[in-house]
Amino acid sequence: MAIQHAAPGEIVDVRPLADQIASSVTRTLIKSEGLEVIRLVVPAGKEIAPHKVAGPITVQCLEGRIEFEVAGKRQAMSAGDLLYLTGGEMHSLRGLEDSSVLVTIQLVAKA
Amino acid sequence: MAIQHAAPGEIVDVRPLADQIASSVTRTLIKSEGLEVIRLVVPAGKEIAPHKVAGPITVQCLEGRIEFEVAGKRQAMSAGDLLYLTGGEMHSLRGLEDSSVLVTIQLVAKA
Repeated sequence: MAIQHAAPGEIVDVRPLADQIASSVTRTLIKSEGLEVIRLVVPAGKEIAPHKVAGPITVQCLEGRIEFEVAGKRQAMSAGDLLYLTGGEMHSLRGLEDSSVLVTIQLVAKA
Repeated sequence: MAIQHAAPGEIVDVRPLADQIASSVTRTLIKSEGLEVIRLVVPAGKEIAPHKVAGPITVQCLEGRIEFEVAGKRQAMSAGDLLYLTGGEMHSLRGLEDSSVLVTIQLVAKA
């Protein structure tokens, strides 16, 4: 069964999940040619092990607090903090509180 | 003089400008290979005329309220509303209140 993603021009809700966060899971909101947008749900204490993606990404904390590590540097991010990575950068993260994080991934065109 | 943009892994603040919005202007937060992130400041009543960009974009209302038009469809967006457009789609917007909007643009690679 196909998973439902947003169509171009369709409004997607990225407000904080707030008291729904404990019952929420990570969801791909948009998956289109060249673009993927995911809302990661990261409970307190959960680790997402080091990984990388081919294209540039942005990471925006929507709520809660995470620890984000890239290039040997660890920093806390809370709601309203955003950063970007160029393609191929190893990174990892960990929930300091129950958090949700918007990740926008540029899918690299196949040759 | 070069304009300062964020480096990879550097945290950028995209919290609402709130009572600073009247004295704020549109700023390019990130400009990197393949990726541009802009915070548009759109005062109430201001129109951004129909235009298009080559690559896919996401548009996220950070605060206030805008009217966004694409493909003959007008809809209001407020804080926490996000949408995407594929490359080349004509769109326009108008501030219904003093608003700020995060625009993430995938720059299309030059041949």
